[in-house]
Amino acid sequence: MPADLKSALAEAAARAEATIRAALTDQAGPVAEAMLYAVTGGKTLRGFLVLEGARLHGASDDADPAAAAVECVHAYSLVHDDMPCMDDDDLRRGRPTVHKAWDEGTALLVGDALQALAFGLVGQGDLPADRRLALSVSLARAAGIAGMVGGQAADIAAESAAAPLTLDQIIALQKGKTGALIEWSAQAGAVMAGADPAPLRRYGECLGLAFQIADDILDVEGDAAQMGKAVHKDAGRGKATFVSLLGLDGAKGRARDLVTEACDSLSVYGDSAECLRDAARFVISRRN
Amino acid sequence: MPADLKSALAEAAARAEATIRAALTDQAGPVAEAMLYAVTGGKTLRGFLVLEGARLHGASDDADPAAAAVECVHAYSLVHDDMPCMDDDDLRRGRPTVHKAWDEGTALLVGDALQALAFGLVGQGDLPADRRLALSVSLARAAGIAGMVGGQAADIAAESAAAPLTLDQIIALQKGKTGALIEWSAQAGAVMAGADPAPLRRYGECLGLAFQIADDILDVEGDAAQMGKAVHKDAGRGKATFVSLLGLDGAKGRARDLVTEACDSLSVYGDSAECLRDAARFVISRRN
Repeated sequence: MPADLKSALAEAAARAEATIRAALTDQAGPVAEAMLYAVTGGKTLRGFLVLEGARLHGASDDADPAAAAVECVHAYSLVHDDMPCMDDDDLRRGRPTVHKAWDEGTALLVGDALQALAFGLVGQGDLPADRRLALSVSLARAAGIAGMVGGQAADIAAESAAAPLTLDQIIALQKGKTGALIEWSAQAGAVMAGADPAPLRRYGECLGLAFQIADDILDVEGDAAQMGKAVHKDAGRGKATFVSLLGLDGAKGRARDLVTEACDSLSVYGDSAECLRDAARFVISRRN
Repeated sequence: MPADLKSALAEAAARAEATIRAALTDQAGPVAEAMLYAVTGGKTLRGFLVLEGARLHGASDDADPAAAAVECVHAYSLVHDDMPCMDDDDLRRGRPTVHKAWDEGTALLVGDALQALAFGLVGQGDLPADRRLALSVSLARAAGIAGMVGGQAADIAAESAAAPLTLDQIIALQKGKTGALIEWSAQAGAVMAGADPAPLRRYGECLGLAFQIADDILDVEGDAAQMGKAVHKDAGRGKATFVSLLGLDGAKGRARDLVTEACDSLSVYGDSAECLRDAARFVISRRN
């Protein structure tokens, strides 16, 4: 990973954690503890995208609440997805999942509280109220039935469907499940500045799809120790993935094309967007 | 129940359902279906409080999104609370709970999607952006770890605590678990109009506590058929409640005092707040 990207991701993780920790200052008990546990130890890709998009628009100082908010939404989705009634995973980010380290009831409440915290955070700060409101309403859409949860629901429905999903159906599903939040993160900085979000949104759209294809590739090629979570799960379930539909080489080629398009869509920002381009290239070269 | 209150509650239920149905127009599948199932069939007390508070401030036409939003938050909390890892209830509002009528994974996603929908809705409408933002941020606080979820977490912690809770601890717990959302609902109309929310907030605070005391009384005196959910659960668990701490008569007296204070706090609104006073009186006379 390029050093600039590595330090930018680390900075995003530190800033998101500090913002969330401050918001939880008055809270004690297992749910608050597990909320902090759940938002730490990850890649902080979404928080990084928010901060980096904001930096391109001179809005870096106002970006912490939104960066922390999207990390809360992402973390809540992982906590709930890992529960026994969903994916039933014991391991996440190389550590026990929340329902293993605590219990299922705590995991349920941790996810619920993290989602509420996200909408508390995204409305905070010194930006004009209309921009904070636009961020909040679009985050609600990206997180809900028309976005992340909708994609998750489609994923579950696919498991009991008569036929495996087609490529178009998988793309639609992933646009919701992982794409909506990544796209929201990428364009948030432009919204903060009242600028045209279209180039960053297109970048985020391509990046999100490349990210999911890379995830499917890692599920085949990765190992659990490096990934910090279970692998080879999809193939074992006979589930349609980008790899099963396009083949390993086809999937890698598609991911590369998407990264190229993601990078090209940032041309309006010139060299100042190099760190976002590095992130796109990293997404398909990562090992976890 | 007074006819005016009955028709106002029915109107609130119809308006909230219409708003939520419209928001889900483009959605199909079991999660969207179960979301509608979860938000219907209840008392719509919180939505009624929003609409009635707004009416007092001439903001009725702008109140539907907030009324629907708080009903979404309330419904999501019931769906998640009913799950096996929480209260494990089969019956709610006289019907099978969502995880019984569908399954646990669907119930989890329904709750998650309803919370996101709430924050999408509360930001909608024609009110000035700063007022919609204030409603959204305060709803996030009322719903989250400092409010509803925090009360829920304290309730769970109490079950494994060495000693039963004291009265002050129960009051603090209930202020979060049921009080925060009721208080938010009561004062929302004043926020919409840019007016002083203090009288409606005080009304909501007293109403919320009276409501919970009445719930504890119903858990002892009610029967499952009338309640539409399981009863005698708290005593069976040896859990401290307002009834176990104050006695049945003491709890009834406390609830009556709170209702009197709730009604008195509306004096600034004169006779126009009679429907809210009826609601407060109804809360302690209801049979379900």
